[in-house]
Amino acid sequence: METYLLDLAILLLSAKVFGILARKIGAPEVVGEIVAGLLVGPAVLGFVKGSDFLTMMAEIGVIMLMFEAGLGTNLKELRKTGPKATVIACAGVAVPLVLGMLLYMVFFGGDVTRGLFVGTIMSATSVSITVAALKELGKLNDTVGTTITSAAIIDDVIGIVVLTVVIGMAGGGGNSDNIGMVLLKVILFFAIAIASGFLVYRGMAWLDRRFTHTRRIPIVSLCYCFALAYVAEKYFGIADITGAYVAGVILCNLSDAEYIERRVDISSYMIFAPLFFTGIGLKTTFSGMGPKLFIFSILFVLVALAGKVFGCGGCARLLGFKKRDSLIIGTGMMTRGEVALITAQKGLTAGLLTADFFTAVILLILVSSIVTPILLKKEYGK
Amino acid sequence: METYLLDLAILLLSAKVFGILARKIGAPEVVGEIVAGLLVGPAVLGFVKGSDFLTMMAEIGVIMLMFEAGLGTNLKELRKTGPKATVIACAGVAVPLVLGMLLYMVFFGGDVTRGLFVGTIMSATSVSITVAALKELGKLNDTVGTTITSAAIIDDVIGIVVLTVVIGMAGGGGNSDNIGMVLLKVILFFAIAIASGFLVYRGMAWLDRRFTHTRRIPIVSLCYCFALAYVAEKYFGIADITGAYVAGVILCNLSDAEYIERRVDISSYMIFAPLFFTGIGLKTTFSGMGPKLFIFSILFVLVALAGKVFGCGGCARLLGFKKRDSLIIGTGMMTRGEVALITAQKGLTAGLLTADFFTAVILLILVSSIVTPILLKKEYGK
Repeated sequence: METYLLDLAILLLSAKVFGILARKIGAPEVVGEIVAGLLVGPAVLGFVKGSDFLTMMAEIGVIMLMFEAGLGTNLKELRKTGPKATVIACAGVAVPLVLGMLLYMVFFGGDVTRGLFVGTIMSATSVSITVAALKELGKLNDTVGTTITSAAIIDDVIGIVVLTVVIGMAGGGGNSDNIGMVLLKVILFFAIAIASGFLVYRGMAWLDRRFTHTRRIPIVSLCYCFALAYVAEKYFGIADITGAYVAGVILCNLSDAEYIERRVDISSYMIFAPLFFTGIGLKTTFSGMGPKLFIFSILFVLVALAGKVFGCGGCARLLGFKKRDSLIIGTGMMTRGEVALITAQKGLTAGLLTADFFTAVILLILVSSIVTPILLKKEYGK
Repeated sequence: METYLLDLAILLLSAKVFGILARKIGAPEVVGEIVAGLLVGPAVLGFVKGSDFLTMMAEIGVIMLMFEAGLGTNLKELRKTGPKATVIACAGVAVPLVLGMLLYMVFFGGDVTRGLFVGTIMSATSVSITVAALKELGKLNDTVGTTITSAAIIDDVIGIVVLTVVIGMAGGGGNSDNIGMVLLKVILFFAIAIASGFLVYRGMAWLDRRFTHTRRIPIVSLCYCFALAYVAEKYFGIADITGAYVAGVILCNLSDAEYIERRVDISSYMIFAPLFFTGIGLKTTFSGMGPKLFIFSILFVLVALAGKVFGCGGCARLLGFKKRDSLIIGTGMMTRGEVALITAQKGLTAGLLTADFFTAVILLILVSSIVTPILLKKEYGK
């Protein structure tokens, strides 16, 4: 018999226990959950091994999280912050891209393409941890929260374009798309999302009036979220969490939006979300590495974090955000996730990267996931 | 990218749509969900294929269902119905066992052991569909509902013993246990469940007083449920759903029992339970079979259903239940599930069965899952 039931019991229990402990010492609960995964996982105690099942459950967890973030969106706020968020996202891609390239070239010599690729890995924000932290702090839907979330979504789109260009520069042709195709896909995705969104919203609004507060409302909404997440990643090369967020935004004006969010939230916190957070720790293993790579990894993490703080935070300050809010935006954009790993994987396939670099990427994901919520809490506490 | 998100969207949406349609024509919602799985699955449209992921999600669904049934238990009712339920369970195993054996011998000649094995397959009730149907009717926790649930749990234990004896008769030694070992395991399981239950209940009652209505209550409870389900199946050969039900019974006197049940219920109806019900339809494929096996399969299903109705229902009547209640008990015990398939699988391994018989078993699971809720609704409607 497979051990998934035992895995679930161990992960959910340890996530809760460490989440509570984290809160006791003033850290956000998500940090405790990540640490729980690190502890019970292969890196320390080895009680739970990662599995395809756990990976899929974690993915559903982060999809639900982003769907909820979308559902809670204040559309007026989104429209207001949209232009600024776009500029912030661009700066947040450009600065780590350049810094990452320089770091690589200082360490390993002059190959610009490889350097650019290391920069590309650094440039992909994964906002889910920040969303969870802001939610915990009750700051997800104000101006700053909305700016971070929408900047991260735009960041995802820019990231796809940059990745395509860099892989194209390396001559990594084969079945990879050209830049025109990628742009077309991005435009098509948003066109389809908006068109389908219009229809789905009308249908759901009717359901909502006719059958307020019935189970079919949250269930059908969740189906739409899963479908859009799937379509985004499968056919348009856009991260599934972006699709889930867009699905949430489309439904955020339903009168039952809060009812949907509550149902999704319960399913999420009972099982899926803790599996996402513990999953980050679970995936971490520290294989042996030489001193040069070790130092590189440390610097890689520091540069990647600083790149977002200065890129996004600095840009936000220039755009007129207050100093504290700019810092929060920069900090919120620091988190990296699976997209960085997927990008690194593509670099491996294209011959731009060796497998050693994965340790640095995993370290970046782990450190940013733990540090960001703690810093955010401090910055809001001021 | 894997298709699990799309699978989830298709299954959850079709389950909801067909569930609503079923209710419109006066049938229970679960029947619609099973039919939805049959339609979108390989048997008809082929939109969704079964996968390990979906199987595990379905298993979590049925575990949650049985945990909820346990949580809703009225302990007084359970104590009152216990002795009668035991007798009913015994009759419900004995009658199909004998009828199944006779049916096999009429069709395929005189091998008593093989005949007994076919009877054993018939004898394993899987009460989850009945639990779902009774829940929908609001009749899960009265005397009749409690009798059915507890008889099904006892049925599971008797089934394990019978299976061991029959496999033992066939000389299917190897790593299979002897009867003393099996009985010891069953006793040990309940001893451990009660001992751990005592501790867990004390701990949970403390948590409950101290942190009423906080997330930790349902999460820790669910972890205990998963752990007991795992331990039951892994170390004691008892079905995981039995473990889940026992975990629910242990916690049913907590003052927050209803709060836990509600949280588990939302997680369950949003995702897991529909995957269990559609999963039954999804697993069904009708491969080609000869006329003899076809007729045998039809009779196998009829005898298996009649065996429980007469065995359990007749016994209930003799024990003083009213005519209608006896009929409901007999009908409620008709449902078969995975345990029948697992038993058949063991017979295949022990050389007591050929693979053709699986079609008959799958047909029994499908027919009993669809017919039972419909009949129950009619019988209660009288």
